[in-house]
Amino acid sequence: MKEIIKNPNTSSWSELCKRPTFESEDLASTVDEIFAAVKAEGDKAVLRYNKKFGGRNLKGLWVSSLEIKNSEDKISEELKDAIDLAYENIYHYHYAQMAQPRVMKTTNGITSFRKNIAIEKVGLYIPGGTAPLFSTALMLGVPAQIAGCTVIQMVSPPGEDGTLHPAILYAAKKCGVKKIYRAGGIQAIAALTYGTESVQAVHKIYGPGNQFVTAAKQEAVRQGVAIDMPAGPSELLVIAEKTANPVFVAADLLAQSEHGADSQVILLGDDEKLLSAILELVQSQVKKLPRKDIIRKALENSKCILLKDLNECMNFSNAYAPEHLILAVDKPAALAEKVINAGCVFMGHYTPESLGDYAAGPNHTLPTGGHAKAYGGLGVDSFVKKINFQHATTLGLQNLGPAVEIMAAEEQLMAHKKAVTLRLQYLKK
Amino acid sequence: MKEIIKNPNTSSWSELCKRPTFESEDLASTVDEIFAAVKAEGDKAVLRYNKKFGGRNLKGLWVSSLEIKNSEDKISEELKDAIDLAYENIYHYHYAQMAQPRVMKTTNGITSFRKNIAIEKVGLYIPGGTAPLFSTALMLGVPAQIAGCTVIQMVSPPGEDGTLHPAILYAAKKCGVKKIYRAGGIQAIAALTYGTESVQAVHKIYGPGNQFVTAAKQEAVRQGVAIDMPAGPSELLVIAEKTANPVFVAADLLAQSEHGADSQVILLGDDEKLLSAILELVQSQVKKLPRKDIIRKALENSKCILLKDLNECMNFSNAYAPEHLILAVDKPAALAEKVINAGCVFMGHYTPESLGDYAAGPNHTLPTGGHAKAYGGLGVDSFVKKINFQHATTLGLQNLGPAVEIMAAEEQLMAHKKAVTLRLQYLKK
Repeated sequence: MKEIIKNPNTSSWSELCKRPTFESEDLASTVDEIFAAVKAEGDKAVLRYNKKFGGRNLKGLWVSSLEIKNSEDKISEELKDAIDLAYENIYHYHYAQMAQPRVMKTTNGITSFRKNIAIEKVGLYIPGGTAPLFSTALMLGVPAQIAGCTVIQMVSPPGEDGTLHPAILYAAKKCGVKKIYRAGGIQAIAALTYGTESVQAVHKIYGPGNQFVTAAKQEAVRQGVAIDMPAGPSELLVIAEKTANPVFVAADLLAQSEHGADSQVILLGDDEKLLSAILELVQSQVKKLPRKDIIRKALENSKCILLKDLNECMNFSNAYAPEHLILAVDKPAALAEKVINAGCVFMGHYTPESLGDYAAGPNHTLPTGGHAKAYGGLGVDSFVKKINFQHATTLGLQNLGPAVEIMAAEEQLMAHKKAVTLRLQYLKK
Repeated sequence: MKEIIKNPNTSSWSELCKRPTFESEDLASTVDEIFAAVKAEGDKAVLRYNKKFGGRNLKGLWVSSLEIKNSEDKISEELKDAIDLAYENIYHYHYAQMAQPRVMKTTNGITSFRKNIAIEKVGLYIPGGTAPLFSTALMLGVPAQIAGCTVIQMVSPPGEDGTLHPAILYAAKKCGVKKIYRAGGIQAIAALTYGTESVQAVHKIYGPGNQFVTAAKQEAVRQGVAIDMPAGPSELLVIAEKTANPVFVAADLLAQSEHGADSQVILLGDDEKLLSAILELVQSQVKKLPRKDIIRKALENSKCILLKDLNECMNFSNAYAPEHLILAVDKPAALAEKVINAGCVFMGHYTPESLGDYAAGPNHTLPTGGHAKAYGGLGVDSFVKKINFQHATTLGLQNLGPAVEIMAAEEQLMAHKKAVTLRLQYLKK
């Protein structure tokens, strides 16, 4: 991201929208080995692989309720307050997603409704390691809590000292999560898939992770367990107009880039001067950041593109389908109306992605890699099934039955027809 | 399904809940070959495989608008009226699923909303062959129409004479589908995945199909295209109490069984006499049905189980997680409250599954194979993405920013923090 790509022809857009590819290790045999071991040996295998990959000395998988309770005392008051505020906002925003079933009358005598029923058993993966992502514990825990899942289990790789960061435990506690296990990577996903002595097998697994976790979640799908969405490196696209403050935009691009060397940022604008200024500020701001090496690698995959006007920028953005989209424009509402493909949209100059990553309310678990064309972000509906219920009175059957008989006969499904006919005949008696 | 399994111990339930397994052909190499050919040769390859597998002589893939328009004249008035009624009910029921975005204020100065935006390009697979499933054209077409997908393409394998059944075309027309292609099997899914001269590449593929279509949809997922849900053989579970009419229940079990030799039906009840009566009626009713050979094979995979009471029946049903659940009881509401895992629930003695399969309103595209534990049935939300939008005023940033700074620092994401800090500093000037 050092030069501006100027007014590329639309025929080149699909090439420009391609995500960088990285050689990823072939993990199939590792995944197979660990899944087989966890299936056969349970906790013992999970602990063994925890130690092998993390080198951590663990007492056990299970985090005690006392440890969860005491987490509160191990974090600063200001962090506690910040988490409390984030929790309130995320809860408030997600709670509004709990739609009540509305009973519909279609044909007279036929009533139907669609009810949200929580997925009974869910598993939440919280990345650990270099950074303790307690924000992810909130983003996964809150909708699971609101949906009312019966068994909510959290897994997270322990740090050097063998423990989980108290902020993760505190966030989990806020969400009513009582089952937390010190396990990460492929072995944690395998435990959630098959169940062990400590961990219950779940119906759906959620959460971000590195390539090991991603590969393990794919294996979980093959074993019949659902997952939240396909995972990939994080991305940001910014559309900046003349009114944008280049200092803010540069900071937003850098914030996204620090997630990992495989992150990608795309900067679009219709003002060449502004774009140049932003690129310069990116180079100067990066120097002071602790993760500058990671950021510089991410910037190598990134692009700055000058386009004709804001409309063209939005067309490009819809073609790219970014995970995060910042509209660094004065009046973002009109432009926001034109969004077709994006995970989450940050409107205006004072809505940095960081706000949404932590505390604004919406979820930060979002589709990457262009999947925003077909997938939305995580929400309460990711933790429920929508089950249809229908009921016919005798009158309803008499009203609708004859049409069903005709259609079933035309589809050559005579037993389907007969299930109606026998009832109608009985009612005629 | 000839004998009653009496009061099995709960420890044996997971074995009883297992779906029958069938040796399925290893389709990987066939799928690879056809996908590669369609990617390289486009329409030409689709036509070649259409001919190879269907032996049908086709003029082209594309169904003309005249052919769609004229479909109306090729079906009987009564079938037309039946489809019209079904369309109205399905439309009415699904339209209510279109939630409007609700703007939420969380922290003062922070507003967010979640907007349903249609998936732009979708592909609908309608099985053809022995039975023309125009009901599936309605069940997929109506929610796509309501969601407002821009490109709705339907594919369906042509019959012996090389055409599509006019009822499929008529149903498609009702749903506003203008792009219909005569293509089935793996090659149709490959065309929707990659695009050809005639067919546009889509973002999501919907619809049931045989093992070839299922394998092809799995390959589409690997190519980055979303699909509606994992597919498998159709199933029904009936809970029958003493008040149930054994004639009706037997007819319902047979209706489900005619879908295919791999279908499965489970009958549960607390009254041995009733169960015996139903089993006898199944054997006598089957004789008169045209698909009796298929049905008899399906019955071999099926089970009749006597349990202690209705509660235990519901517990078993939740463990099995059936695609279709019929509550053949007098007062179904209380029992329906206890449903945790099911695709669709049919309540009472006068709500045969056939009603819902065709015309009651709810969708008939439902999770099979136990996937009802994590997935719901198809709906309008399957055709939209829920995109989060958020906006902060300067006041909003000042209110929420400090909490975000604290959390970002704790997660060691200093560039995330800085994106907030730089803005707050600017506002202080």
